[in-house]
Amino acid sequence: MRSSQYLLSTMKETPADAEVISHQLMLRAGMVRRLASGLYTYLPTGVRTLRKVERIVREELNKAGAIEVLMPMVQNAELWQESGRWEQMDAELLRFQDRHQRDFVLGPTHEEVITDLIRREVTSYKQLPLNLYQIQTKFRDERRPRFGVMRAREFLMKDAYSFHLSQDCLQKTYDAMYQAYTNIFTRLGLNFRAVLADSGAIGGSVSHEFHVLASSGEDAIAFSTESDYAANVEMAAALPPQAERPAATQPQQKISTPNVGSVDEVASFLGLTPQQIAKTLFVRAEPTDDSSAPAFVALVLRGDHQLNEVKAEKHPLVAQPLTFASDEEIKALTGALPGSVGPIGLNIPVIVDHSAAQLADFVCGANETGYHLTGVNWLRDSAAFDTADLRNVVAGDASPCGKGSLEIRRGIEVGHIFQLGDKYSQAMKAGVLNEEGKNQILTMGCYGIGVSRILAAAIEQNHDEHGIIWPDAIAPFQIALIPMNMHKSVRIQQAAEQLYQQLTEAGFEVLFDDRKERPGVMFADMELIGIPHQIVIGERNLDQQQVEYKHRRSGDKALLALDAVVAEMQARVQQA
Amino acid sequence: MRSSQYLLSTMKETPADAEVISHQLMLRAGMVRRLASGLYTYLPTGVRTLRKVERIVREELNKAGAIEVLMPMVQNAELWQESGRWEQMDAELLRFQDRHQRDFVLGPTHEEVITDLIRREVTSYKQLPLNLYQIQTKFRDERRPRFGVMRAREFLMKDAYSFHLSQDCLQKTYDAMYQAYTNIFTRLGLNFRAVLADSGAIGGSVSHEFHVLASSGEDAIAFSTESDYAANVEMAAALPPQAERPAATQPQQKISTPNVGSVDEVASFLGLTPQQIAKTLFVRAEPTDDSSAPAFVALVLRGDHQLNEVKAEKHPLVAQPLTFASDEEIKALTGALPGSVGPIGLNIPVIVDHSAAQLADFVCGANETGYHLTGVNWLRDSAAFDTADLRNVVAGDASPCGKGSLEIRRGIEVGHIFQLGDKYSQAMKAGVLNEEGKNQILTMGCYGIGVSRILAAAIEQNHDEHGIIWPDAIAPFQIALIPMNMHKSVRIQQAAEQLYQQLTEAGFEVLFDDRKERPGVMFADMELIGIPHQIVIGERNLDQQQVEYKHRRSGDKALLALDAVVAEMQARVQQA
Repeated sequence: MRSSQYLLSTMKETPADAEVISHQLMLRAGMVRRLASGLYTYLPTGVRTLRKVERIVREELNKAGAIEVLMPMVQNAELWQESGRWEQMDAELLRFQDRHQRDFVLGPTHEEVITDLIRREVTSYKQLPLNLYQIQTKFRDERRPRFGVMRAREFLMKDAYSFHLSQDCLQKTYDAMYQAYTNIFTRLGLNFRAVLADSGAIGGSVSHEFHVLASSGEDAIAFSTESDYAANVEMAAALPPQAERPAATQPQQKISTPNVGSVDEVASFLGLTPQQIAKTLFVRAEPTDDSSAPAFVALVLRGDHQLNEVKAEKHPLVAQPLTFASDEEIKALTGALPGSVGPIGLNIPVIVDHSAAQLADFVCGANETGYHLTGVNWLRDSAAFDTADLRNVVAGDASPCGKGSLEIRRGIEVGHIFQLGDKYSQAMKAGVLNEEGKNQILTMGCYGIGVSRILAAAIEQNHDEHGIIWPDAIAPFQIALIPMNMHKSVRIQQAAEQLYQQLTEAGFEVLFDDRKERPGVMFADMELIGIPHQIVIGERNLDQQQVEYKHRRSGDKALLALDAVVAEMQARVQQA
Repeated sequence: MRSSQYLLSTMKETPADAEVISHQLMLRAGMVRRLASGLYTYLPTGVRTLRKVERIVREELNKAGAIEVLMPMVQNAELWQESGRWEQMDAELLRFQDRHQRDFVLGPTHEEVITDLIRREVTSYKQLPLNLYQIQTKFRDERRPRFGVMRAREFLMKDAYSFHLSQDCLQKTYDAMYQAYTNIFTRLGLNFRAVLADSGAIGGSVSHEFHVLASSGEDAIAFSTESDYAANVEMAAALPPQAERPAATQPQQKISTPNVGSVDEVASFLGLTPQQIAKTLFVRAEPTDDSSAPAFVALVLRGDHQLNEVKAEKHPLVAQPLTFASDEEIKALTGALPGSVGPIGLNIPVIVDHSAAQLADFVCGANETGYHLTGVNWLRDSAAFDTADLRNVVAGDASPCGKGSLEIRRGIEVGHIFQLGDKYSQAMKAGVLNEEGKNQILTMGCYGIGVSRILAAAIEQNHDEHGIIWPDAIAPFQIALIPMNMHKSVRIQQAAEQLYQQLTEAGFEVLFDDRKERPGVMFADMELIGIPHQIVIGERNLDQQQVEYKHRRSGDKALLALDAVVAEMQARVQQA
């Protein structure tokens, strides 16, 4: 492709309204343009990368035995009413009426449509298992679309759905999809990890997220230093300390702590570390039939630890969804303002995180505004309590797999696989005749990849101050051909044209920068777009029948003989 | 692909609600399923063909220098208000609001979005010309979706838009796109014709439609028997007769024709042919400033000819859009009911089609209910009149190109290219600095292909009583491998598995029918799906180390040596 015949659309300045680096670089490199909030047009450079991602996804899914279908983006409301999601989903589900005032939605996902298809087309166990996928536009009317294509309203997704008669069969397909996803992200050239995930509102027993690792990632992921264990911090278990709780050495004392509320303030006031302080949170209790049962539960954590809401919500005494007590409710429960509360003397259940339960001679609020207790010791000073895992793991914690300790890194979720169970098949009565001739409800898996999101995630992971650094597999072009001052030199022009022809004939995707621009402008654009391999043609090197090669990622340079360029590129460019 | 692991979904019965053969066969062959009115899910067999069409379209457009982009399906209303189409378009343009009550549309086409993009990204003549395309889902809320994917509401379209500073430049891109379309439909293996078309409401000077020829086509196309001339019948000029009008030989007479109205009835009543009768139609006249000007115009055609509404509408005396007089208005104008009207004695302008103007001694209504005139002769019996081309051409007419005569055949429109001019660029003020440094409004072309519609059109052209007959290039599978009673014979099974492996490794797309089905069921399914090449493995031929080959289209059969199958297929299967 000649830049003069291409829509390059690069920008020097960083657009003011782009918050994250991938969004800034996608705008600057001429990959996307905003049409309206959360709606993006992909320019040619963006489409080239998008199509490459699509191709790799499609090839690996086909290899894994998944079969491609294509379902409408516009879906009739009846199916959503049948599954219950018409009522359950908020305004993110875009609802509208057609010219005949019938209700429709713009599909944010396709569980209903595929389940409806399968209950019609599949009648016997002989037709199972089936694993169907599509690469299709989705629409979610996000309240606050942001970060460019990272959280857009209209986006491209690969979604797959599998159908089975047994958990064993589902597990086999799930494993095959796990492997396909691993192959996909490996071929894309991304540094990624598959992590255990919470299956959340979707339900089901097992779920893995695939994260592209990047310091800007929205999610925290815990890794073992010595095994393959990786889990979303939401999910990673904090093991109880192995040692016994130290013995009490101090008496409990009440001290005045005026205007001191947060853990850090208390620690600083008393000359202690947050590790020596217990913090207490109050949440609604799971309702019971017993009207005299307490309405709240106290959760106690070590001062340096963070509550893990997913774990807390799963505790049988805690109400779902997790709901914090208001300041007024806390005052009524404890007699004190939130900065002075503690677990001692409460008449509601107290659940203590394993690490907090290990404390001795600790500090906590006195349940009297402006006062704390010091030298507090469990059981000596407190009533009996439950212990549980309530906190986010932190770096250095023992890994739940039993090997090594945990590291915490940040990731961007680009894939998610679920063992769905019968949530949709039950609601929509999707069953087949099993081997015994009886109707049996299907078991389902579902498997998503954010195709357009991968572009942003790849950039968050692969960039420097000059621009994007594409992995070879998904670069919009493999090679940038940069002739210096070609329009003033017939010799340069001839060499450039010849190399362009040779490289193109050898099957490379070359961006030939034939614009009448200064070399500096051309270098800057090619670095910004992130083309992995650059060939620069200049007068001096040409005197020696040479051109300069530069590798975008390493910055390594080399002089190549003109007649060796094609062979050198064949050795250096990685094929997807 | 093994059928046992595939979603074949063939049906024996013809679905009652499918009117046209392509819709019936797409349902029966398991290509599509209806989700709701005008909304279809593509099953695996449908997707395979769809993706092949897409690939050929993409390859040929890239070759022609068009550059791929991807624009959102959801578009903000502001752009449509700016172009004027927000008001102009009827309910076919689906309008809706997002969660913040902002107005959006589901894109039926993308002129507004691309014109907005170009006016932002392109500022100088140096960046032109540009030709951008996408393959994207479109939505048109048709009042009456029908014929399956032929006229669906959600469908897949390739749309391209080109931008220029001169008509010459537009013409060059237009010619290149004409050639690209010719290459595409040729590679798809379709019998098609490019025909001159009316540019209709879109305006602009030049327009061609690409039609797949099929007896069931909605459009009539006129071809020259001796040149490349082809035009939509809407557009094909009927040349005026060369000969002079014969002299009058009969006196004009008024005869009673009770209860005789239509041309056929009059001809039969009088023992004449429709060619000897003039029929008269009344339409609204183009309004003028002169309030005394007549409100209607009479149009006269030979009894066997059909009015061409596109031609009539273009006549300067005729109002746009073409509006026929009501029976009451005709009564007021002529004093007679519609079955008895004629051009003689009217006090409104009379426009006579060239062929009708050639009549002598003809018959027409007497403008008195129940009476006709015979022996009528122009000018002797009538006032002066205008002549014009008002009719559809018919088979045997002289070709307007000057060579040969016309044949009429039916076609299905699958592509349309337009020289748009400045309709959108003017309305949306899309200009660039030209070589003189002055702002100049862009000239545009636009180019559409109905990607999903091609599937239906190809089937309308290629089928028989057993099912679809795919051209090799877009067949869902190239080869059907049909082992007879494989589940009862290890020998058959081994031969089938071996052939399947060999053919797959040689790069063929094979559907290996490994179901436990009777041979008859398998043959019927493979014929229905329309796989072009079939290989049947049976005991008797296997004794001779042979298999039977059958060509779906010709029905030709041949015995192939087992070890020659791959080579034979390489010779017989046409590559796209």
